[in-house]
Amino acid sequence: MKKVGEEVKLQGWIDTIRDHGKITFIDLRDRTGMIQCVGQDLTKVSPESVIEITGKVSNRPENLINPDIKTGKVEVQIEKLEIVSQAQELPFDLGKEELDLELPTLLDWRSLTLRHPKIKAIFKVQEVVVDSFRRALQAKDFVEFQAPTIIASAPEGGAEVFEVDYFGHKTYLAQSPQLYKSLLVSIFERVFSVNKIFRAEPSVTTRHLTEVVSLDAEFGFIKDYMEVKEMAEYTIKFMLKEVEEKCKSELAMYGATIPKVAEEIPIVKLREAQEIIYKRTGRDQRKEKDLSPDDEREICKWSLEEKGSDLVFVSHYPTKARPFYTYPDPDEPEYNQGFDLIGRGTEWMTGGRRIHDYKTLLEHAKEWGITPKNIELYLQAYKFGMPPLGGFAFGAERITMHILGLKNVREASLFPRDMERVDLRFSS
Amino acid sequence: MKKVGEEVKLQGWIDTIRDHGKITFIDLRDRTGMIQCVGQDLTKVSPESVIEITGKVSNRPENLINPDIKTGKVEVQIEKLEIVSQAQELPFDLGKEELDLELPTLLDWRSLTLRHPKIKAIFKVQEVVVDSFRRALQAKDFVEFQAPTIIASAPEGGAEVFEVDYFGHKTYLAQSPQLYKSLLVSIFERVFSVNKIFRAEPSVTTRHLTEVVSLDAEFGFIKDYMEVKEMAEYTIKFMLKEVEEKCKSELAMYGATIPKVAEEIPIVKLREAQEIIYKRTGRDQRKEKDLSPDDEREICKWSLEEKGSDLVFVSHYPTKARPFYTYPDPDEPEYNQGFDLIGRGTEWMTGGRRIHDYKTLLEHAKEWGITPKNIELYLQAYKFGMPPLGGFAFGAERITMHILGLKNVREASLFPRDMERVDLRFSS
Repeated sequence: MKKVGEEVKLQGWIDTIRDHGKITFIDLRDRTGMIQCVGQDLTKVSPESVIEITGKVSNRPENLINPDIKTGKVEVQIEKLEIVSQAQELPFDLGKEELDLELPTLLDWRSLTLRHPKIKAIFKVQEVVVDSFRRALQAKDFVEFQAPTIIASAPEGGAEVFEVDYFGHKTYLAQSPQLYKSLLVSIFERVFSVNKIFRAEPSVTTRHLTEVVSLDAEFGFIKDYMEVKEMAEYTIKFMLKEVEEKCKSELAMYGATIPKVAEEIPIVKLREAQEIIYKRTGRDQRKEKDLSPDDEREICKWSLEEKGSDLVFVSHYPTKARPFYTYPDPDEPEYNQGFDLIGRGTEWMTGGRRIHDYKTLLEHAKEWGITPKNIELYLQAYKFGMPPLGGFAFGAERITMHILGLKNVREASLFPRDMERVDLRFSS
Repeated sequence: MKKVGEEVKLQGWIDTIRDHGKITFIDLRDRTGMIQCVGQDLTKVSPESVIEITGKVSNRPENLINPDIKTGKVEVQIEKLEIVSQAQELPFDLGKEELDLELPTLLDWRSLTLRHPKIKAIFKVQEVVVDSFRRALQAKDFVEFQAPTIIASAPEGGAEVFEVDYFGHKTYLAQSPQLYKSLLVSIFERVFSVNKIFRAEPSVTTRHLTEVVSLDAEFGFIKDYMEVKEMAEYTIKFMLKEVEEKCKSELAMYGATIPKVAEEIPIVKLREAQEIIYKRTGRDQRKEKDLSPDDEREICKWSLEEKGSDLVFVSHYPTKARPFYTYPDPDEPEYNQGFDLIGRGTEWMTGGRRIHDYKTLLEHAKEWGITPKNIELYLQAYKFGMPPLGGFAFGAERITMHILGLKNVREASLFPRDMERVDLRFSS
């Protein structure tokens, strides 16, 4: 910032205009912040226009000092104002502290609503989530790779997959980089990837998008599934700490606090979780193969009350209810060593140990109804020596949503896609 | 590393086996490197199997010291050898310094060929290329964003675009995040993204893939197109320096040197380049709208000989030959302020200044045959105040290819996709 008395030339957006007859106050905004400018007989300008101001920096009168902003003690006396890009009349007031719009309006005007500080803040948090995921794993010697998007077959089930016309061949959008990241363990040992995954989810819920940013990791030479749990735990703790340190003002805007995590995040088996829920609520879910949304909320309540942790791992789902590559527990093979991380009532992450033995994997694939030919490249890695391995995947939008307490995952995606909308709503 | 005389337990892949009757030498490999193990009457093991060895570290006999590797002074006396994952017989010898395979074989056995040190090295270089791109721009206050993959219309021309069946609606795979990154300039001012782009390129060339990793940047409040050129130049210099420092052994494997860059990378207009080529070779290309591959090679030769730079910018292509958003030069509007970065004979990057005025942009869009409704969200950003802006995009695979002097861009993609192959070749 230049000193008082000096001449400056500034460019930025008009955040707000306060017209007092002859004298006009303009708050000028750029990525570094805001500064008050004041002038007489100015050209007519509209909010959100980009302007260039030439003027002198002066001290504000004592009673007009604003202690809340960096430039609150000074203002610029406008000598010249030039319009760089004139903004049309706004469809709603962007200057309010809360942008009180329905979700469809928020998204129909996405290029404009993203300018609001509280909405912009969501993507600052998301940037830190993604970047800290990468740095957590780089520090543990993981190699970054670029996961493919177009895949030749849909091994994990065909129903919710998007089809791509590929020079007359049927191909699909990846639902997960699972097969690629695990085969790469045989090359690089430890790998991670920030990549898009796609689900043709034929319903509009508050927690599903068709296009999602997935934070994937996989590593080899593990002793057991608890080593995978510990790496996942290290990673999420690293990410939460970074968000806490780097996003203070963004968290404050939402009155959000970072989830409480215990020294060690608790882990319970599905059946233990169901038992706990039964004891606490009387609801008997002990024969279910998965947790319902109600169960997820209840087990989080238990975890916070009993273990002081907003986050809790649930492991040992029925083997048949999980993908073919999940590692069955040797002591009770009808349950496996896969696990989810549940936080604030919903799933944040899924992971676990994977089968590394070629023959077992091939048998499982067949039992699960998968044509080995369709996963040939993946099986190849296992034919030639695969170490014991495991990994996990976080959804970047879900974590952002849960940290800030957003009601709908669409708010945590810059350009959310669902069955009714790709940027704009489909006209029906 | 443990000390001589200590007991160790090691897991890794068998890199090579040398059988001397009773005594067997095994080179054990993991991500940290290689160590020689020696034992008698061992279980029969095969190369690439994952094994666990228990044994004592001892000094090698003086005449068997290998100065080329970190662990070259010691070896492990095997007491116990356990097979973790037995590898099947290899289809070719992975132990040779050069993996002398045809490209189709290299890709048919991708999960195995990627284990070869010289192939693995390609992706170490690519990792540094991608990571240094991000860090170069983070240092300049750019915000990272996640660009969408599924788009509702194909504004930049329909021919080479992949179609996705989206709940009965026609959607497409993004050919570029251009419209998203430039609209985000009105939100964050400076943005970058590492994302996939897709081209339904109906031919198999050595420099085209259907799925590419694009390194995209865009920023606002520029004075002129030269400011965009300078940011692109800073970025590529930063990336090359990082690769030079972090990939010494990888570069050495390929006998590769980092491209020479002058203090300032030269920039010439297309017509100047064509004039230079005419004078040097007698080939008259002065009426062409673009550089041919021959022209690209010749202008690089000129740049290196006359300016001491392997890289050269070429600007001012005919306005009509570039996308609708490219900024025409005010002094000669039939040429525009877009530019390419040419290096070692091919294009590394494309960029330039963009139109920021809403009315001009809308006129151009219509003139270029684009339906405004199809780019509504993008136009929205310009309606409400867009600063002067520009940006650029690098292809991660191309840069990797050119740094290492690879002959085919497929070698620079972990899982390359072209019209004949998605992982495996399509059976026709």
